[in-house]
Amino acid sequence: MMRLPIQLRYNDYDDRGHVNNAVYLTYFELGRTAAWRALGEGHEPSFLVAEARVTYRSPAMLGDPLAVEVEVGEIRNKAWTWKYRIVDPRDDRLVAEGETTQVMYDFGARKSVVIPDILRAALEKI
Amino acid sequence: MMRLPIQLRYNDYDDRGHVNNAVYLTYFELGRTAAWRALGEGHEPSFLVAEARVTYRSPAMLGDPLAVEVEVGEIRNKAWTWKYRIVDPRDDRLVAEGETTQVMYDFGARKSVVIPDILRAALEKI
Amino acid sequence: MMRLPIQLRYNDYDDRGHVNNAVYLTYFELGRTAAWRALGEGHEPSFLVAEARVTYRSPAMLGDPLAVEVEVGEIRNKAWTWKYRIVDPRDDRLVAEGETTQVMYDFGARKSVVIPDILRAALEKI
Amino acid sequence: MMRLPIQLRYNDYDDRGHVNNAVYLTYFELGRTAAWRALGEGHEPSFLVAEARVTYRSPAMLGDPLAVEVEVGEIRNKAWTWKYRIVDPRDDRLVAEGETTQVMYDFGARKSVVIPDILRAALEKI
Repeated sequence: MMRLPIQLRYNDYDDRGHVNNAVYLTYFELGRTAAWRALGEGHEPSFLVAEARVTYRSPAMLGDPLAVEVEVGEIRNKAWTWKYRIVDPRDDRLVAEGETTQVMYDFGARKSVVIPDILRAALEKI
Repeated sequence: MMRLPIQLRYNDYDDRGHVNNAVYLTYFELGRTAAWRALGEGHEPSFLVAEARVTYRSPAMLGDPLAVEVEVGEIRNKAWTWKYRIVDPRDDRLVAEGETTQVMYDFGARKSVVIPDILRAALEKI
Repeated sequence: MMRLPIQLRYNDYDDRGHVNNAVYLTYFELGRTAAWRALGEGHEPSFLVAEARVTYRSPAMLGDPLAVEVEVGEIRNKAWTWKYRIVDPRDDRLVAEGETTQVMYDFGARKSVVIPDILRAALEKI
Repeated sequence: MMRLPIQLRYNDYDDRGHVNNAVYLTYFELGRTAAWRALGEGHEPSFLVAEARVTYRSPAMLGDPLAVEVEVGEIRNKAWTWKYRIVDPRDDRLVAEGETTQVMYDFGARKSVVIPDILRAALEKI
């Protein structure tokens, strides 16, 4: 499991002072990008996001610090899931949680491919 | 069912020229806001989004026009779902689809409330 | 002069219900993209934005419709300016105005180039 | 002068892999928010941004780390300027620079007000 502090931006908030619900997928992406880099695979993704799900647990207000936690869920033949938790690190209050499904993808050949063994081994260690 | 053309913004795209996956929740929100206004409830939402799900079906590239379609899914006692389809209106190609669950919410009393009959009737007609 | 209605997004607003000041450059970009397409040059820009300036004249609140107006300012040898006005189309109230300077750029050769005559002629007509 | 590392987001980039020009005002805002907090004034701004200017010096590409530097420019009776530099901290390469003008504002009374002495003194020290 990795935890990354989120640098909040003033326009993440809506007119009630809550973090806008659409922004959570961007927070997941911050975590996903950090996890991908930790795998040693460079900045350029070679996967497609096929599905995303967010469950909102408690509102994040202007001034609340936030962090994203990422861990690997299921690893299949050509796809795997990453699971995310957005927390307020002051008391570990759960703000939102969710999951994305990634499909290994060859952008040159434009088709899905099997997860390479070396990446699978790295994913299993996060 | 309502359909709304989306005004795409240059920073909706990522470095491959695809619409960034996080932006789809903003497109759903455009549809949801239009649907909410069509209900005659004003600009200010009195619901919370409790859950969101997106399935990515085919990439949207720079230059592709997009529209969002919204319809009501299930209506429960205090909550309902909206279902969305993002399409390329030139050929109705499905780009993404998904769903959000809304909980009727009294922001003053800070608690969920039953969907008023008049709103329920309006939701059933969309 | 071109005028384009802006499709506002809920996360354009800050916690006071004002359009966030950073978003105006995105509105300028919507106008610039429309102006560029009107020139018949395709979706892909072949210029760099070298400078941008925004003056905020009156706040845009949640629910206010907005439009962006674009016109060409000065045309120099390798650069030109676009001037923008963000207005509330209900009464033409001026919300913000500004300017960007574009430099004609050859992305392959990585250097600025002279504005082609055909583009200069088209710019002079907007 | 304050320097703050920027947490880059994947959708800050455009389809060429450059940071989108509109995003720089958000980076300025990150610096401004940090500077404002350092003044001990809380999270809620009591100023309006009246003007913003950005000059783009060199492109920031996917993978380049960035930081924002902020310092106070001119302090007038009711307004002051903040000056910003966006740099790549690896070699202090200048990516963009600019300035915003803030007007001290009483949001209750809806009018501009004189900068309080205590704030002026704090501004002079940054």
